[in-house]
Amino acid sequence: MPETNDQWRIAPFEAVASRLVDVAMGRAAADLVVRNARWVNVHSGEIIPSTDIAVAAGRFAYCGPDASHAIGPGTEVVDAVGRYVMPGLCDAHMHVESGMVTVTEFCRAVIPHGTTSMFVDPHEIANVLGLSGVRLMHDEAVKQPVSVFVQMPSCVPSAPGLEEGGAVLGPADVAEAMTWPQIVGLGEVMNFPGVAANDPTMVGEIAATRGAGKTVGGHYASPDLGLAFHGYVAGGPEDDHEGTRMEDAAARVRQGMKAMLRLGSAWYDVAEQVKAITEMGLDSRHFILCTDDCHSGTLVRDGHMNRVVRHAIAQGLKPMTAIQMATINTAEHFKMEREIGSVTPGRRADFLIVSDLAELSIDAVYARGMRLASGGRLEADMPAHAYPESVRNTVRLGRRLTAEDFRVAAPAGAEGSVEARVIGVVENQAPTKALTARVPVQDGVAMPDPDNDICRIALVERHRASGDVTNGFVSGFGYRGACAMASTVAHDSHHMIVVGTSETDMALAANRLGEAGGGVVFFADGKEKALIEMPIAGLMSDERAEIVAKKADRLIAAMREGGCTLNNAYMQHSLLALVVIPALRISDKGIVDSAGFRIVDLFV
Amino acid sequence: MPETNDQWRIAPFEAVASRLVDVAMGRAAADLVVRNARWVNVHSGEIIPSTDIAVAAGRFAYCGPDASHAIGPGTEVVDAVGRYVMPGLCDAHMHVESGMVTVTEFCRAVIPHGTTSMFVDPHEIANVLGLSGVRLMHDEAVKQPVSVFVQMPSCVPSAPGLEEGGAVLGPADVAEAMTWPQIVGLGEVMNFPGVAANDPTMVGEIAATRGAGKTVGGHYASPDLGLAFHGYVAGGPEDDHEGTRMEDAAARVRQGMKAMLRLGSAWYDVAEQVKAITEMGLDSRHFILCTDDCHSGTLVRDGHMNRVVRHAIAQGLKPMTAIQMATINTAEHFKMEREIGSVTPGRRADFLIVSDLAELSIDAVYARGMRLASGGRLEADMPAHAYPESVRNTVRLGRRLTAEDFRVAAPAGAEGSVEARVIGVVENQAPTKALTARVPVQDGVAMPDPDNDICRIALVERHRASGDVTNGFVSGFGYRGACAMASTVAHDSHHMIVVGTSETDMALAANRLGEAGGGVVFFADGKEKALIEMPIAGLMSDERAEIVAKKADRLIAAMREGGCTLNNAYMQHSLLALVVIPALRISDKGIVDSAGFRIVDLFV
Repeated sequence: MPETNDQWRIAPFEAVASRLVDVAMGRAAADLVVRNARWVNVHSGEIIPSTDIAVAAGRFAYCGPDASHAIGPGTEVVDAVGRYVMPGLCDAHMHVESGMVTVTEFCRAVIPHGTTSMFVDPHEIANVLGLSGVRLMHDEAVKQPVSVFVQMPSCVPSAPGLEEGGAVLGPADVAEAMTWPQIVGLGEVMNFPGVAANDPTMVGEIAATRGAGKTVGGHYASPDLGLAFHGYVAGGPEDDHEGTRMEDAAARVRQGMKAMLRLGSAWYDVAEQVKAITEMGLDSRHFILCTDDCHSGTLVRDGHMNRVVRHAIAQGLKPMTAIQMATINTAEHFKMEREIGSVTPGRRADFLIVSDLAELSIDAVYARGMRLASGGRLEADMPAHAYPESVRNTVRLGRRLTAEDFRVAAPAGAEGSVEARVIGVVENQAPTKALTARVPVQDGVAMPDPDNDICRIALVERHRASGDVTNGFVSGFGYRGACAMASTVAHDSHHMIVVGTSETDMALAANRLGEAGGGVVFFADGKEKALIEMPIAGLMSDERAEIVAKKADRLIAAMREGGCTLNNAYMQHSLLALVVIPALRISDKGIVDSAGFRIVDLFV
Repeated sequence: MPETNDQWRIAPFEAVASRLVDVAMGRAAADLVVRNARWVNVHSGEIIPSTDIAVAAGRFAYCGPDASHAIGPGTEVVDAVGRYVMPGLCDAHMHVESGMVTVTEFCRAVIPHGTTSMFVDPHEIANVLGLSGVRLMHDEAVKQPVSVFVQMPSCVPSAPGLEEGGAVLGPADVAEAMTWPQIVGLGEVMNFPGVAANDPTMVGEIAATRGAGKTVGGHYASPDLGLAFHGYVAGGPEDDHEGTRMEDAAARVRQGMKAMLRLGSAWYDVAEQVKAITEMGLDSRHFILCTDDCHSGTLVRDGHMNRVVRHAIAQGLKPMTAIQMATINTAEHFKMEREIGSVTPGRRADFLIVSDLAELSIDAVYARGMRLASGGRLEADMPAHAYPESVRNTVRLGRRLTAEDFRVAAPAGAEGSVEARVIGVVENQAPTKALTARVPVQDGVAMPDPDNDICRIALVERHRASGDVTNGFVSGFGYRGACAMASTVAHDSHHMIVVGTSETDMALAANRLGEAGGGVVFFADGKEKALIEMPIAGLMSDERAEIVAKKADRLIAAMREGGCTLNNAYMQHSLLALVVIPALRISDKGIVDSAGFRIVDLFV
């Protein structure tokens, strides 16, 4: 069993039920009583005035008109007159790694925003470290003062045959993970063609999860609501956060799935889909809110689930409905409603004191009956989590790279220029375009063409220290002058992606990340302009979110100075190896036609 | 593992998921396709027109606009044009024993009414046979063509110290039962003062249930919504079917419990409580419908859950809301929503074809994809279930009783008459009145007084063959002439209750039930006028519900002829030993002041 920080340990309900009864009956004093609150009751859908809440052993013991009988000499009493008490917010699906910080630092960042439960899918670290990486994050999750439940990653690698990452997970791993205390189910089953085709790995993983009585997360990233969708549904996934249109949300709920509406740093899928409730009039009980991916900058500046709930209300949802979609609906989906999701007896005492419900102005955040934050500031003393040294050594280049590694020989006989495949970045979209263009040939080398916005892209194998480099071309970043950016966040296999105009800067950038143990770095004219170190699996910083956010600001500024004007330039960069999404990508196996699921030649 | 009838066996989802996917994708033929239906979608709250439903392996494989791709040469195709397909109905809390028939015969009676899932609490047989009785009914439940889930009885005996029944169950029994396949939780925790007082048996049983991740059923039979209620809630019960008033339902839902609104043969608790939705505007998602207790007559003549849903609609609920309260809400409460409660892929193909939704006109009933009934007639071939001989020998009188056994000696020196305690039956209510009256004394014997509606009542110990008889007086039945009625259904300890004007008829009636192995019998003038044999634990007939209902009609007629005018005379009779409900009762330990929880003298 992982170690839990003692002061935050929550005993099972049945171990403390007698104490809760004693407090409710007035035979024992509560640890905490909140008085005169407006009770946001997500079960009945009411705001109930003048409610007292008594807490003991980290759980609600009494919610009713008068808890004076539960107040003893040692009871902390909080007057909430005129304010609301509502359940702490739940994020139904998210990746800690997207914040580029550890679970602990993610919690530190989001607790002041009112998030008290998270359902995290450590898909990224799983691609680097396999099951042991999942376990490390699981064990860190257990230690938090808020509830961090873990979904076992389902698709590692995402695209077998088209890439080889740091690990392979299968049904036996899933079955083992299902025995861990904090695992609530299987993470986003993104191999949706595999489910509809009865791929044995997908079938086996879903069976292991269902056999354990846990929840199968979905990820149906396609607009096709025909047979492919129906086949996916029949295979067992129980939720989906990849819908974007009103009809996507409606289709999922009608099929008995939960529609998870997503507002992440770069995902804006709530406004359209919430119309399934506000315009089509669907019952909201099976709609859920989530973030999926939030950068540190979003967490530090804009918020987390409070941002999502506010946004949902701004789209015309009743505040109560939006709050249900971030509390009780989520809890029920994961069969955790006895533990979280409402302010009622027996549940963990995770709650917010709020002065304005529609604005979600959070005065204080409590979890397990302890005040963790107030006025937007963390009050809990949360020590940084130390990862073992073994996770700090995952960027294995095998050798120092040189400029030569990033030079691509043109086909024999090519003169002047040659027709090459070019990955075309599309502004504000994850899919790329499969372009072709003539690139210059100099001294037998196929060259980038910055004047026509064509840079070099390279995928540097970093898991097996093979020293292998795959080279190609990419368009859309707009880099000019001599520069390069490298990142070991390279979904989903998380090798290293290097994009640049200068082979020298590309080699400098790649080697710099090798020294730093991973992260993102920008070089121009041979000089390091910005660096975010991510020594934990090459995916996460060990620093605080606000520091990471500042470093990310510097990185974005450096990319701008290099000529890049994309909205989400860093994300675009890190998605260039995402071979499960069309149309052209790069992997350790070559240039990938990810619409046709095959490796293609760089030159046409 | 109990034996299942092969033709009705349902494989776990994960064992057949690949087949469901193949059918959804058109790669394999469905077993059954229903076409052109109006899809009653309890997830989205919509009626979706022109829907096709494909079924394979007993589960829904496809629900959508066109299942023609799933039709093969062997596929049965049903045209439902103009009609509705809705989920089969769930009874969230009920006692099979109240129907006086076996689980099999109960199912046979209710399947044509559209019930496809039942959550049964074998509390009565548990009081006679203990854990082995629960297991017998559990194993019969497994064999049914519909889903019969079992709640482990929690309060056996109901009132330790005030009675001694046939068995004692405790936390260790509960823990064992939680490992049985069909057990979904703990049955109605009726010792509500015990929960609020942290009675170790209650605390232990609830802990065993929660530790197994199963649902704790409640039974808070008190109008007090003060601390006693809050203490009960804090102890862990998750639902309650004992509310009667609008405020009862609201209070339960606000506390995070499910309000189960009950319409049984003699319970009418829906109309008032449903106002919490229709008048107070509470969210309906945590309201559930149930029957609790239905006699055979109700099942045969009036229906089962279809009667409850119709009634709820007649009280002003939208049909969709009422249907949700008898399907998805119930399924979610017991965490069974992956199996039952909606017409969506993966779930058991339990559905109704209905021509009028508000009237709930059921044309056909399907469970696990097989048509079990149509036009109100059972079509399934359901063999009667044979109970072992051991359960047919539970009425142990130890000797032949004589008239003398029912004669009460007056206190020494009493002459003419004597002041005695008299149990006062109250029309249409379960509580009794604690009366006193002067009864005649003849030859030293305290006599009944039919002119003043005072009969003899006796409780005959029948579990331990002690031959013990407790005698007393009861008022309210109106019997005249020489008659007596005896019943081995005698909640909750299920000894034998005999009520009569004639000691001779009382002895005849008691001995007759001893021969029959239990049941209910009425004698007048030394002759048997009506008999319902219940040889299974003295609680259940082994005959069909319609036969039992006819015998019950004869019994009621005989009681009427004897002078009784009560509305629910048989129920009133069988509740006279229910020592957990005020005010005066009879048990094997004496006359019970059940308001004061003590044994009192018969004579004042």
